[in-house]
Amino acid sequence: MKLIRFGEKGKEKPGVIINDQQYDVSGLGEDYTEHFFETDGLNRLASFIKNNTLNTIASDVRLGSPITRPSKIVCIGLNYADHAKETNAPLPPEPVIFMKSTTSLTGPNDEIMIPKNSVKTDWEVELAIVIGKKAAYVEEAEALDYVAGYVLHNDVSEREFQLERNGTWDKGKGCDTFAPLGPFLATPDELGDIDNLRLWLTVNGQKMQDGNTANFIFKIPHIISYVSQFMTLLPGDVISTGTPAGVGLGFKPPVYLKPGDVVELGIDGLGTSKQTLVSYSKS
Amino acid sequence: MKLIRFGEKGKEKPGVIINDQQYDVSGLGEDYTEHFFETDGLNRLASFIKNNTLNTIASDVRLGSPITRPSKIVCIGLNYADHAKETNAPLPPEPVIFMKSTTSLTGPNDEIMIPKNSVKTDWEVELAIVIGKKAAYVEEAEALDYVAGYVLHNDVSEREFQLERNGTWDKGKGCDTFAPLGPFLATPDELGDIDNLRLWLTVNGQKMQDGNTANFIFKIPHIISYVSQFMTLLPGDVISTGTPAGVGLGFKPPVYLKPGDVVELGIDGLGTSKQTLVSYSKS
Repeated sequence: MKLIRFGEKGKEKPGVIINDQQYDVSGLGEDYTEHFFETDGLNRLASFIKNNTLNTIASDVRLGSPITRPSKIVCIGLNYADHAKETNAPLPPEPVIFMKSTTSLTGPNDEIMIPKNSVKTDWEVELAIVIGKKAAYVEEAEALDYVAGYVLHNDVSEREFQLERNGTWDKGKGCDTFAPLGPFLATPDELGDIDNLRLWLTVNGQKMQDGNTANFIFKIPHIISYVSQFMTLLPGDVISTGTPAGVGLGFKPPVYLKPGDVVELGIDGLGTSKQTLVSYSKS
Repeated sequence: MKLIRFGEKGKEKPGVIINDQQYDVSGLGEDYTEHFFETDGLNRLASFIKNNTLNTIASDVRLGSPITRPSKIVCIGLNYADHAKETNAPLPPEPVIFMKSTTSLTGPNDEIMIPKNSVKTDWEVELAIVIGKKAAYVEEAEALDYVAGYVLHNDVSEREFQLERNGTWDKGKGCDTFAPLGPFLATPDELGDIDNLRLWLTVNGQKMQDGNTANFIFKIPHIISYVSQFMTLLPGDVISTGTPAGVGLGFKPPVYLKPGDVVELGIDGLGTSKQTLVSYSKS
């Protein structure tokens, strides 16, 4: 299945995509929350789709994040060798973990707000995992049983906040609108080989990132197992798996985003998203 | 007011402490959630207390965290000069920010589980702020208007995970039971000068930490304003303000916690808490 959430920000309703057509499933009476994933909601949703006639949704409706605000967004740093190299970082001997404030979550085609006092807002196309059930000390061999699905993520990053402001990376990762997620959550059966998905990103139409999950340093089962040694993952939690080469920080000289810039990104089987950059304004 | 939550883990009910007696306020029909703080719940609670006869609670009831799971727990690192020195860290020119997985939250007198494969589980007595209303780009002069209250926090830390495992500090801060919070949330009017509170911690009865918030490098209004430049704070969010000298890492040689050890801690006006260390077991 492909899960979407649509409508006004903060008032999204659940939907699905079937054969490229968007359908409303708010009749199910549930949203895509921690409780939904925890209580086998994906099976209830499958039954609902099978047993009901669904209303279509206009193709130009706003999409929100395909899941509600999770308990946490965990990110893996430097998980592609080419990206580690471009940022002058050594290859990590074990995964780098950092966290994004969940207030950064936004829809796949919403505007990205450049934070006040930001001079180094950057892009990162990433494959994100959505956790399906509570996970603590999970064995690598069983890790994929804990996946609800996968989703396209732009791990927007402020490099000065992240790297030059005396703290962990968290400072440059959690600004409002810094986590455009979607367009949809795809359950694993919708995808082919998860270790061979192309992912790309353009800025104003120019190709900046063009990678493949075949080049992961740490593969998905290892990542889930690894993170679950340090913190318990809850249903609906997001783990973003790192970005390939081609971020703004890696250019010589570096290139950063400015108001009016348009970022488009995509992953094989997970659709595309598009964000326009704007200056910060209070919502 | 002093807010508590009591009862079985995961099924806590809200209560209050008045003149050292614990009372049940579950008749209010609310829990101490993001929604509660966001919608002026503290005033509703004050009216409820004034207009109702409250049932007392047995003094030996289990206490949970005095707030429900927040959207995030943000921590300030190295905010006391003596602690920075003992960990061989330079004085920070601006606050260090890191995050704890909210799954680490636990009651003030619950057991602390030593994670699997942990050899360096350590203690940190801290004053934590609970945010009362949504805060983004808050001015320092107005920052205290965003405070719902204050609470005692043991920022339990696994030093090997935090410092030697190739990542940000987040890896050693968010293990299950690593955030005993409480016994109660005190609204600001319950406390005297927030910049002159003694805080202390003992291990097996031996005094390890004995500090005072007078020695903050960055004071509370600055911390709230500062964090709100990088991420939006939501009602019920927690910011822990750092620990004074005397953590296990600072001893020569370092001293870490083992099963059976008993940690007690307290802050002037915020009560005391007590945790026994146990080996990890799945809940």
